[in-house]
Amino acid sequence: MAAMQKPRKPEEMYTELVRWARDQTLLASCSELLSWDEETYMPRGGVAHRGNQLALIAGLLHERITSPRIGDLLAGLEASDLVRDPASPEAVNVRQIRRLYDRKTKVPRDLLQEIVRTTAFAQQEWGAAYHDADFARFRPWLEKLVTLRRKEAQCHAAGRPLYDALLDIYEAGACSADVTALFGALRPEVASLANEISAARRKPKAGIFRRDFPVDRQRVFGEAVATEVGFDFKRGRIDTTIHPFVASIGPGDCRIATRYAADNFGMGFFAILHEVGHALYEQGLDPEQYGTPMGEPASLGVHESQSRLWENTVGRSLAFWRHFFPLAREVFHETLHDVSLEDFHFAANAVAPGHNRSQADEVTYNLHVLVRFELESAMIAGDLAPADLPGAWNEACARCLGIVPPDDREGCLQDGHWGSGMFGYFPTYTLGNIYAAQLFAKASEEVGDLDGAFTRGEFAGLVEWLRDKVHRHGQRYRAGELIERATGAPPSHRPLIEQLRRKYGELYGL
Amino acid sequence: MAAMQKPRKPEEMYTELVRWARDQTLLASCSELLSWDEETYMPRGGVAHRGNQLALIAGLLHERITSPRIGDLLAGLEASDLVRDPASPEAVNVRQIRRLYDRKTKVPRDLLQEIVRTTAFAQQEWGAAYHDADFARFRPWLEKLVTLRRKEAQCHAAGRPLYDALLDIYEAGACSADVTALFGALRPEVASLANEISAARRKPKAGIFRRDFPVDRQRVFGEAVATEVGFDFKRGRIDTTIHPFVASIGPGDCRIATRYAADNFGMGFFAILHEVGHALYEQGLDPEQYGTPMGEPASLGVHESQSRLWENTVGRSLAFWRHFFPLAREVFHETLHDVSLEDFHFAANAVAPGHNRSQADEVTYNLHVLVRFELESAMIAGDLAPADLPGAWNEACARCLGIVPPDDREGCLQDGHWGSGMFGYFPTYTLGNIYAAQLFAKASEEVGDLDGAFTRGEFAGLVEWLRDKVHRHGQRYRAGELIERATGAPPSHRPLIEQLRRKYGELYGL
Repeated sequence: MAAMQKPRKPEEMYTELVRWARDQTLLASCSELLSWDEETYMPRGGVAHRGNQLALIAGLLHERITSPRIGDLLAGLEASDLVRDPASPEAVNVRQIRRLYDRKTKVPRDLLQEIVRTTAFAQQEWGAAYHDADFARFRPWLEKLVTLRRKEAQCHAAGRPLYDALLDIYEAGACSADVTALFGALRPEVASLANEISAARRKPKAGIFRRDFPVDRQRVFGEAVATEVGFDFKRGRIDTTIHPFVASIGPGDCRIATRYAADNFGMGFFAILHEVGHALYEQGLDPEQYGTPMGEPASLGVHESQSRLWENTVGRSLAFWRHFFPLAREVFHETLHDVSLEDFHFAANAVAPGHNRSQADEVTYNLHVLVRFELESAMIAGDLAPADLPGAWNEACARCLGIVPPDDREGCLQDGHWGSGMFGYFPTYTLGNIYAAQLFAKASEEVGDLDGAFTRGEFAGLVEWLRDKVHRHGQRYRAGELIERATGAPPSHRPLIEQLRRKYGELYGL
Repeated sequence: MAAMQKPRKPEEMYTELVRWARDQTLLASCSELLSWDEETYMPRGGVAHRGNQLALIAGLLHERITSPRIGDLLAGLEASDLVRDPASPEAVNVRQIRRLYDRKTKVPRDLLQEIVRTTAFAQQEWGAAYHDADFARFRPWLEKLVTLRRKEAQCHAAGRPLYDALLDIYEAGACSADVTALFGALRPEVASLANEISAARRKPKAGIFRRDFPVDRQRVFGEAVATEVGFDFKRGRIDTTIHPFVASIGPGDCRIATRYAADNFGMGFFAILHEVGHALYEQGLDPEQYGTPMGEPASLGVHESQSRLWENTVGRSLAFWRHFFPLAREVFHETLHDVSLEDFHFAANAVAPGHNRSQADEVTYNLHVLVRFELESAMIAGDLAPADLPGAWNEACARCLGIVPPDDREGCLQDGHWGSGMFGYFPTYTLGNIYAAQLFAKASEEVGDLDGAFTRGEFAGLVEWLRDKVHRHGQRYRAGELIERATGAPPSHRPLIEQLRRKYGELYGL
């Protein structure tokens, strides 16, 4: 579709690159809807055809990104004055498209196809292995995937450790040395807080959240809260699925899919708030920049900071429930008539070490991530053989969480990430928690009395601050720089520890 | 993606053509999901982006169908022995892809783009004109569209009347002379039956259908009936929309979208049955042939025959309600406790001439279609100026239906087809009714006692007969030939008239 004669002016080349990027995003956004539909409404019989549809679009996208024309445009633009200011949209877009182009073109097509094929089988086998708690079934696939992703990393590591080349896919510009330092500082602090909480005499009445919460009422309540905190239903919707996610179909169309269980209020409600956080980020991107990196989220860590901020920092605060508990009591009147605000809030913050990451509380959650980071780094570095994963997992869990899973289903098979070939993804969860606390601390200073605002049901001030400091910048800055510009300091574990200590200290009487 | 060297053997060329056709269909099926979503779940804010997504895919599809490579493959194959047997899959696929290729390549790209652009505006203006019953607002757009579609028809009419070139898009191989003859024979018979019914002393208690039918119960009842007649929910689903339709996403994924009104049982229920008829056709196509004309419906008229057969011939029969009325009384117990089977069945067959086509009963419906066929034929032939449409409409309605609409909203603006540039589409509705009656008469002979089967809730015999005679053939035969092969006679108005006379004669005591 692009004209093939070589344009002379950088402006013309840039226009062509942007037009290409917008079409590329538009085509990818068709896949986004196909995937959303697969997870929400698609009848079972449609699965094979859906795979064919997604594969066709993936092929078209790959053909378009690896076109030599894109390489020519990038080279021409990089040599021009148009990208002199590194924070200009032109420079950002050229830099970020270059990053993608290099990753896609430096890896041989055969290798990419082998990764895609192997991953498709590995996901299936992981599912079966998980179901039967049978690591032996998953082991050969894990070995294959580690080997393949190491090969891939070698193609674009450019001198960095192999793990960094994979981490960079999810968290642009991050390196394992920094992450190791950050997580190393965080670990003892979180572990000691978790221990103090375990030893505390005060305990929440956690059973409150496991009473009967009719699903249709959870939906009404969740949508009401989503609306009040700023999710725009004219530009989005909430549906039901198995594993919650946000699908960003395009500007003006951002969809949450979530799940409910009638006997677990926390699971349903905090999943919605979590996804609302992601969605507010998507809805806060600059629609004028749609289709280019300037209009896309900065990184998975930054994305996760937005979800965690709303799920935990806002959604488990006393001020938040001062405002919403009366509504909760109206909607769930038969369930909550004998529950006090204080008991409800304490139940929302129950801490108990468990085997499962995705069901973990706000405090011990990070310990789960640290275990995974340690093990996947070692596998990619070649220091841990995939065959030895179960033992290493159990050892790390004993060391970090103080408990050993009863089997591999509750242990090293519990997450699907590795079976999907995703190594370097896990750290973004805890990076998100770290960024969230740091952003929230700064927002509290700059917006003013957030507790007072939440109590009055006012969330727009915080949303606006996040729009201004985070959302509207798209990929203008790498995550670390974005956080530093927003908060005045590079990413640090301290705000997270302070925030956790303050809330849990009060609740558990530490 | 297709290799560009010229293959030597016809088999190789055919393989390449089929691979191309399958990818083409796969890509088009992504649009099908985008459109389905637009009509069911898409938030309002997503409309502009959805237009961009659909336009991108339409552009890719157009680029691919007009590629000279396809012309080369078709020419090579047409000269080969591979297509000697005209009913072989190879011959059918080559013939039907040629038909599409010629239509797309014979019309200049500029003209096609102007039609697309003009239609987008015309649809909007039709909507506004309809809302305000203001034909003057729609007139210039109707004029533009008639001019443009005439130009388009000139490009591929190849000596036929211009109207035939448009009709052929929807009903491959049909010509206006045949349609005129068929409709000319039908018209006096239907008009005279409608008059006898109007004059009859017996009248149905039509108000039964306008009682209170809670929508959630209509959904339960409709889905239960759909399942019993053979709609496969593992390979489909039913959602809610404004204008009912079927979206065929791919093999194993065929979706009905329909609507309900709490005070109109007939509107909701017969819309479901109508769409179930379409869906059974889609679900009955040969999945092995998916992506090629051999795996696609024969024509719009044949498609409509399947929907009408289930909606009217089956769904308004006494035997059908002998089986389903007890369930209806259970589901709508407060509404139907005092209604007899006979009164319910008679209410399902109430006949009353009205202004509105889409709400018309089974008898007068065809008169509405004949009016439109007459007027659009005249406009495309140049015998009726679009500016004179309202007068011509009212005159034709008076002549055919015996009533004159109160305004253009109830008159010539009521349907959106012309505003969408669709001329030549309307006849397929009545062709569908004609085919349906003819197919049903033959099925009754060959399957045996269908009334008895329906009374026992057995629909599989009829479905299997339709699969065998119609569905599985895809586009192997043109509509007329398909009907003749299935029934032993070319399309005729007689079975329809006989069927209507038999049922309505009994009900109204004619």
